[in-house]
Amino acid sequence: MGFWKSLFVNSDATSSPKSTQSSSVLAEVQSDDGSTRIFFSTDRDIDLYELEELCNAVGWARRPIRKVKKAIQHSFLVVTMWEQRGSRRRLIGFSRATSDHAFNATIWDVVVHPEFQGQGLGKALMKQLVKKLRSEDISNVTLFADPQVVDFYRGLGFMADPEGIKGMFWYPD
Amino acid sequence: MGFWKSLFVNSDATSSPKSTQSSSVLAEVQSDDGSTRIFFSTDRDIDLYELEELCNAVGWARRPIRKVKKAIQHSFLVVTMWEQRGSRRRLIGFSRATSDHAFNATIWDVVVHPEFQGQGLGKALMKQLVKKLRSEDISNVTLFADPQVVDFYRGLGFMADPEGIKGMFWYPD
Repeated sequence: MGFWKSLFVNSDATSSPKSTQSSSVLAEVQSDDGSTRIFFSTDRDIDLYELEELCNAVGWARRPIRKVKKAIQHSFLVVTMWEQRGSRRRLIGFSRATSDHAFNATIWDVVVHPEFQGQGLGKALMKQLVKKLRSEDISNVTLFADPQVVDFYRGLGFMADPEGIKGMFWYPD
Repeated sequence: MGFWKSLFVNSDATSSPKSTQSSSVLAEVQSDDGSTRIFFSTDRDIDLYELEELCNAVGWARRPIRKVKKAIQHSFLVVTMWEQRGSRRRLIGFSRATSDHAFNATIWDVVVHPEFQGQGLGKALMKQLVKKLRSEDISNVTLFADPQVVDFYRGLGFMADPEGIKGMFWYPD
């Protein structure tokens, strides 16, 4: 697919790619010729097998569908990214955040399909997620970054170990 | 107060410190003479002004009661620690975790009253929290530790930056 030259991000897209999702479309990114568009959604009604396929494409370990469903249900926010060509849409990105709905949020499972990487779409997806969290008055937006994506998140305004705060994981004995 | 020599932790305490809390008492820690006891609870019906007092005692910045209430409501788990002398009980510790109810949990706001620090009670509180999270089949238990408590959490089995994973915080421009 081509590079998205006329990338624009807005928070009140006027046209809806799918009637049932009209309330949850966050923004759109359009290509020059307008034949294909990328849109974001907060709709949680996701085909979990399509999501599994997306996660497989980036080499993530397979997880039980039942648990993925539960995790999506109990996430504070889910932002997905879709490619639409005509009436056909395809899940090309996913991200979600847990939160206490008041102070803190933690971002998990950020994924962009390999075919769509390197074009600023992951950045656009993350911006949507953070923007939405901030609009909900969440002041502390956090995540745990694998070494190879630390710089990606740095470029988005995330700081590693600010004031010496360390991310820690519990490991069973 | 004295050192808790006969510290024991169980998950099915037979006596309840307060009838309305019977279902949520996780464990008890008893002193030698039995006159005072420390107990843990998952009950969320906490006097928010008493919690504010506890947080003040350790020098935390004051937070709006309304938001604290919301955060407690939307936490996956809250574990509190109480000192009971006769019929009088006092909030001496607090901890909570957000979660997607499936894979990940993040621990926030761990506090032990200064008068009760240095006796293993913070460790006991954390063990209750982690045990409960594990019993709910949460495999990834995480937290963000200030530099001065990194070693405390290390002693509990938490690892900083495992495999180079970095804790990151978003800062507005």
